[in-house]
Amino acid sequence: MQVPQGDSRPRHTCTACGAIHYKNPKVVVGCIPEWEGRILLCKRAIEPRYGLWTLPAGFMENGETSQQGAARETLEEANARVSVDGLYSLFNLPHIDQIYMLFRSRLLDLDFGPGEESLEVRLFGEEEIPWEQLAFPVVRETLRLYFSDRANGGAFLRSGDIVREPGESRRYHINMHD
Amino acid sequence: MQVPQGDSRPRHTCTACGAIHYKNPKVVVGCIPEWEGRILLCKRAIEPRYGLWTLPAGFMENGETSQQGAARETLEEANARVSVDGLYSLFNLPHIDQIYMLFRSRLLDLDFGPGEESLEVRLFGEEEIPWEQLAFPVVRETLRLYFSDRANGGAFLRSGDIVREPGESRRYHINMHD
Repeated sequence: MQVPQGDSRPRHTCTACGAIHYKNPKVVVGCIPEWEGRILLCKRAIEPRYGLWTLPAGFMENGETSQQGAARETLEEANARVSVDGLYSLFNLPHIDQIYMLFRSRLLDLDFGPGEESLEVRLFGEEEIPWEQLAFPVVRETLRLYFSDRANGGAFLRSGDIVREPGESRRYHINMHD
Repeated sequence: MQVPQGDSRPRHTCTACGAIHYKNPKVVVGCIPEWEGRILLCKRAIEPRYGLWTLPAGFMENGETSQQGAARETLEEANARVSVDGLYSLFNLPHIDQIYMLFRSRLLDLDFGPGEESLEVRLFGEEEIPWEQLAFPVVRETLRLYFSDRANGGAFLRSGDIVREPGESRRYHINMHD
């Protein structure tokens, strides 16, 4: 750790080549893949939250757009092909330095199955969603809003912050911006 | 550069402590600060694009939300206080591994002035915007859409990709998602 010239904060600096590795928030991109009203979820085969259900999503990589990243993660985790539509939810997770971007999307066919990071992949109707076995608050909140907006014919962006409360409680509160 | 265990790509790895520095896209957050119909722009005092005009924006930092980052950058670059509203434009810039998020915002008072990274800060009416002296395509496109949407009473998210064309031409094309 060194303070680079002209900077005010210590940064990770390579002692071999002098490269500075700035740490900035990472973007997680993913899909809400829909097929005849049902939503595709993946059961996690990796930590954190092994064995719990989530939307296909992962870290955006250099050289791709967020929509391309969302489609790539859906292919990797669920072997599923999607047409990616508009951004549906955008959440800040400042306690873990992440932004989640989840896109509306349409599953193109029923030829899907678990990738390396999934134990199982299946479609869930609204009444079948395993609410108590969802991996992350951001997924739970996105799905809850999505079904509610769908019932009301809405199609706008939902944006907010998911803030972890102090201590070891794993409790969160959610500040919506709209 | 080493391929970490369980990974498939070479990553920047610290030979002293073993830390792996993954390279992911960075998020640039900023404001479209409005005061009685005019927009606050900053004349850049730093490279790249020294001397050209831009919206107040910069890299999102760990531990903050995107809205907090947008307000912080506006304070740092223009000494201006804003109330941050909804996200207006969201652009992928895959050729430089960035995502731009620019927020509608209202300037809270007229007590502003250049920060360390700005030569000058001022309000511009739509007819005064220095279109030929804007620093970045993403700023030009955002302002163009913003004035057009404002004239039509629109208030929705604009999302797209700004893709640099091959070669040294500094030409770009824009794929809007909506």
